[in-house]
Amino acid sequence: MEIREKIILGVDPGFHITGFAIVKMGSGRTSLCDWGLLKMRTTDTLVERVGQFHAFFAEKIRQNGITHLALETSFLGKNAQTFLKLGYLRGILYLLANTHALDLAEFAPMQIKATVTGHGGASKEQVAALLFRYFPALNNAPAVQRLDMTDALAIALCGAWHKKTPLSLIK
Amino acid sequence: MEIREKIILGVDPGFHITGFAIVKMGSGRTSLCDWGLLKMRTTDTLVERVGQFHAFFAEKIRQNGITHLALETSFLGKNAQTFLKLGYLRGILYLLANTHALDLAEFAPMQIKATVTGHGGASKEQVAALLFRYFPALNNAPAVQRLDMTDALAIALCGAWHKKTPLSLIK
Repeated sequence: MEIREKIILGVDPGFHITGFAIVKMGSGRTSLCDWGLLKMRTTDTLVERVGQFHAFFAEKIRQNGITHLALETSFLGKNAQTFLKLGYLRGILYLLANTHALDLAEFAPMQIKATVTGHGGASKEQVAALLFRYFPALNNAPAVQRLDMTDALAIALCGAWHKKTPLSLIK
Repeated sequence: MEIREKIILGVDPGFHITGFAIVKMGSGRTSLCDWGLLKMRTTDTLVERVGQFHAFFAEKIRQNGITHLALETSFLGKNAQTFLKLGYLRGILYLLANTHALDLAEFAPMQIKATVTGHGGASKEQVAALLFRYFPALNNAPAVQRLDMTDALAIALCGAWHKKTPLSLIK
């Protein structure tokens, strides 16, 4: 039986800045294939931005032969309407998981930090510093964008390394 | 200049039961073209249901030549995760608005009731009773499904009759 290669897209969605990272699980190693930011103009309508978000990730999924999609579980913050709108982008990612038959998994923030650093109480900066050590290619990124990208990379790595029932199988 | 005919799809989305209604604005009259429920199985995964929801409404939009999409504004209820998941379905409707170049408008619950009954404090049952009087075709629906459908019809009528800047133009 051939085992399907695992190519994981991790996404940290937002209507202004979305971080993403793509990692490949090979035999005994995890390699970083692609990473970056999708920036959308706040002068564009929400309808336009939902369309841009869908087109961007549909293309990334096709180009890279993505098999797994990893997301961070969202929790309600101060603004309920912002939280609801974040759901729009998550819905687009669920649709892409359906269209391209991806395994979709969600992880809690503490679980992600624990998986990539060994302790769930690590700060964003500690996660970033460690990931820059393991994936030196990240140093090519402008400093200002690093935390958005390391968040997405941490999510993708959690998708790569974690054993759990994918959310796409959960009712 | 030719004025584009206005064909409005009103949707009241849910992961179990979604009500929808399609109304057409002709010269001096509003007619009901289609209405019903999309029921999704709670034994299917969320990823599957997001895909079913997208396929169902993409088809309705194509079949009926929809030009306008109307939604009710959502407010945070008791369960934040349910609220977030409702956002997934709303995101799919935003994507369809983008794909099919529909004008998308959202209305507050009170505004919808005020538009279809004349007073914003009307109960669901009062809205339903009035709509059954204006659109006798609704009587063909099983009694148990009527409130889901009249909600969606009220949203569609609000989209048909209300003058406001469509949300698709709002940043």
